[in-house]
Amino acid sequence: MTNKLNNGLVKSVSLSPPTLQDNTADADRLINSLKQQLNTDDIKTDLYLIREVPELLRKWDYSAECVLIKERNRWNLIGLAEPKGNSVISGLAVDLGTTTVVVRLIDLSTGNTLKETSFNNPQISVGPDVLARIHYSEQDGGLEKLNSLIIGSLNETISALCSSLGMEKEDIYLLSVAGNTAMTHLFLDLNPYWIIREPYIPVVNNPGILRADELGIDVNRLARILVFPNIGSYFGGDLISGILYSGLNMSDDASILVDVGTNAEVVLGNNNWLIACAGAAGPALEGGVTKMGMMAGPGVIDQVEIDADTYEFRIHTIDDMKPRGICGSGLIDLAANLFLTGMIDIRGKLVKSKCGERYLRKEDLDHLVVVSGDMSSSGKDLTITQADLDSLVRSKAAMYTILKTITSSVGMDLSDISTFYVAGTFGSYIRPESAISIGMIPDLPLERFKVLGNSSLGGATMALLSSDAVEEIEKIRDSITYIELNVNQEFMQRFSAAKFLPHTDPTLFPSVKINV
Amino acid sequence: MTNKLNNGLVKSVSLSPPTLQDNTADADRLINSLKQQLNTDDIKTDLYLIREVPELLRKWDYSAECVLIKERNRWNLIGLAEPKGNSVISGLAVDLGTTTVVVRLIDLSTGNTLKETSFNNPQISVGPDVLARIHYSEQDGGLEKLNSLIIGSLNETISALCSSLGMEKEDIYLLSVAGNTAMTHLFLDLNPYWIIREPYIPVVNNPGILRADELGIDVNRLARILVFPNIGSYFGGDLISGILYSGLNMSDDASILVDVGTNAEVVLGNNNWLIACAGAAGPALEGGVTKMGMMAGPGVIDQVEIDADTYEFRIHTIDDMKPRGICGSGLIDLAANLFLTGMIDIRGKLVKSKCGERYLRKEDLDHLVVVSGDMSSSGKDLTITQADLDSLVRSKAAMYTILKTITSSVGMDLSDISTFYVAGTFGSYIRPESAISIGMIPDLPLERFKVLGNSSLGGATMALLSSDAVEEIEKIRDSITYIELNVNQEFMQRFSAAKFLPHTDPTLFPSVKINV
Repeated sequence: MTNKLNNGLVKSVSLSPPTLQDNTADADRLINSLKQQLNTDDIKTDLYLIREVPELLRKWDYSAECVLIKERNRWNLIGLAEPKGNSVISGLAVDLGTTTVVVRLIDLSTGNTLKETSFNNPQISVGPDVLARIHYSEQDGGLEKLNSLIIGSLNETISALCSSLGMEKEDIYLLSVAGNTAMTHLFLDLNPYWIIREPYIPVVNNPGILRADELGIDVNRLARILVFPNIGSYFGGDLISGILYSGLNMSDDASILVDVGTNAEVVLGNNNWLIACAGAAGPALEGGVTKMGMMAGPGVIDQVEIDADTYEFRIHTIDDMKPRGICGSGLIDLAANLFLTGMIDIRGKLVKSKCGERYLRKEDLDHLVVVSGDMSSSGKDLTITQADLDSLVRSKAAMYTILKTITSSVGMDLSDISTFYVAGTFGSYIRPESAISIGMIPDLPLERFKVLGNSSLGGATMALLSSDAVEEIEKIRDSITYIELNVNQEFMQRFSAAKFLPHTDPTLFPSVKINV
Repeated sequence: MTNKLNNGLVKSVSLSPPTLQDNTADADRLINSLKQQLNTDDIKTDLYLIREVPELLRKWDYSAECVLIKERNRWNLIGLAEPKGNSVISGLAVDLGTTTVVVRLIDLSTGNTLKETSFNNPQISVGPDVLARIHYSEQDGGLEKLNSLIIGSLNETISALCSSLGMEKEDIYLLSVAGNTAMTHLFLDLNPYWIIREPYIPVVNNPGILRADELGIDVNRLARILVFPNIGSYFGGDLISGILYSGLNMSDDASILVDVGTNAEVVLGNNNWLIACAGAAGPALEGGVTKMGMMAGPGVIDQVEIDADTYEFRIHTIDDMKPRGICGSGLIDLAANLFLTGMIDIRGKLVKSKCGERYLRKEDLDHLVVVSGDMSSSGKDLTITQADLDSLVRSKAAMYTILKTITSSVGMDLSDISTFYVAGTFGSYIRPESAISIGMIPDLPLERFKVLGNSSLGGATMALLSSDAVEEIEKIRDSITYIELNVNQEFMQRFSAAKFLPHTDPTLFPSVKINV
């Protein structure tokens, strides 16, 4: 009944039983049949499994469901299950975030999602960001603690997932893990000391396929873990996973992938070449930067519209709860609408006369009331300050400059971009038209924008379902050229020009029409 | 100073330290350098080792001695040692005998033997032979006990070896193990139940390279074990190892390898093809069959000469101690000399008139006194009976028939054999001229005989020293055709003809001159 994946990792075999004329050993009989089916002469298996083979084959009349993984040209047989049995052969995709870890349990035979859940990265208790955790790891026992925090939480989550689905942990044969370079180090119990010290050297770029039991992960005894490779301290496996998910690397036409988190990571390329860079474009766009800025979550403003005639604010919050803050995409919507209605000028400065009662001056700062106290969750006014807007303008200018620089570096124009992929939690809420209005991203036809959502999890899921994933991932990794963004005169000129809304040269943004 | 083996398993690397321009991770830097040196793009390593790489490379100024193994086209980096450090990177060759286990510790950088020792297979306490042990393994906990007996003794021996040499167990990175199919199963904790039941199916033919820690062997944590493959229940890894050692598989000319133990195993072939068969030719040639027959050991008669004029017996014992028994090679010498001096006739029957005082009749049997009580270790006469001689004649006839049958099967004549390799403990003492005299082996020029000694240990040693060993072993295994000896009319005719000394057709043995 299952719609088997053609190049998936679960294969059915049915063997001729041994005879005096055909006395090949049980394990070799099984492997030989798989070799034929997979057209390879290179399949390994574990002694632990070999020990079980004779009894299982006899119990199942010389048939079995086989779970395999493939690393380059070598296959590994890692599990046997009863044909038409009750167990669901499954795998777990893990987006190993600094703040949030998202996991998705997949039926490896069908590709169906069984369940998805997330948990806070428990390392937050030690330090909120990468830097704090790396410093903590330098203490005696620090690395071990960070490692056991994340492994422990993952094991608890796996346990809860399995109970809720009536599954056994032994039914999980493969994990794929995509995280930034530092999180991957802490997950693998690798010392991240040199990541943050010149010349910024990871312990390993490409850990490849590892054994789950080596990491203390409580799943099938022979389960393997595919850990996405990094390119360096600043370009992690989560981005490689995102590229895999976007399919950027499969198209003839050059596309761009932008992942905005704490940093903005940008990859440009096609099936022939990929170039990547990372820059600190995002600080203004994430929680903690503006006074009311925060991560997306219930009650957080993610969409804002301002009526051009009445200046009425139409505010949307996540889960339609009373507003308690604003996230990056809400802030971009807000800024775009403020600009289009003339409430801020082309430098991003509040225009008192247009803001009316929403304008406040307190603590020596210009404020704009986004939601008044009677409507907000806390009962206090939700405001943004001129400083918040200035910061947003710098961020959007940085983003545009990075996009301009990376396309120029290969002699392309921004208008040549065939598809503009937006990834990351931030990206899943963004409205491209607003980002265009403030000149954060180029003025491309809207249909060229594709919002990917959690592309890191998406790529990790793909890796569970294709036997060619490892090769594809290594191909992506090997074809990326990472460029350092040199903050030289040309870069600074571009940056200055981009610090206007939408840009010093408005002809670059023909679609942006100001309603004043 | 060390004479590095060109295609050995120890490689030196010296890396350029990382810079801002070359920020490849430590582990990848090391692997990339090895890839270049070994001209491969496929080298894996373990997470455990990856964790150590940054500190070790920095401590050793980015140089290291690397220990690798190779399985088909994949290399595995399994150890790092200090350049010009004190530790000796070593491997252990194991001849896993049913009765005796012989181990040889090898310096993997030079190929030198560090030490060799042996111990009784402790499974003897459970059962003296393969069959008894397999039956014991069917009891509750039986297999586990048999497995822990052999693993325990091996660990003790390794521990003692290392102490005596001032080495660490961690310096042992590789073991190669050659044993018969049943002993290999018990060593790997594999259920041997089906080996002795029709259609005689091993659990596995080719276990490949395994991890020492999976087997509970107390050496380097990442050490690997190369287990020689078998062809079936009756053709084990010890024989494959013997073929490797003989080089039978490397020559253009067809040679033959004979290993006489409890069974006689025969392999005929060259670099193009190999055919093998096994037959119960040996029972008369090992301890326990003749009343005084025993394994070679101190005080055991291994050579006998009889003066053709005086009929004086010149007896040699191992270690020149007082005689306490006779081993297979001694028995062949004795029979050859009895025949050449006319003390037995062409049917192997004692000729009373020629035996003189050495002839005895007791318990209704004809006896020949080999050593009189005043000269023997026990103070009693050492004798052989007519039944012992009859048994020897049957054995030698079986051996000759097997040799004749296997060569005929490929249209060869026995005289076409380019080299006749004699392996096994038995083979290390045999004198080809005596075996020819009784017609056990063909009448070839003596220089064509090569005594190999413990060929199983020899092959296991070779496997430690060449990165191509696994491939070569698999090539041998795959090129062998195993033939069943059909005891048909032709076979029985050959057997009958061979039951004379040296043969019904004496023109087949022109060199055998009877002194009567």
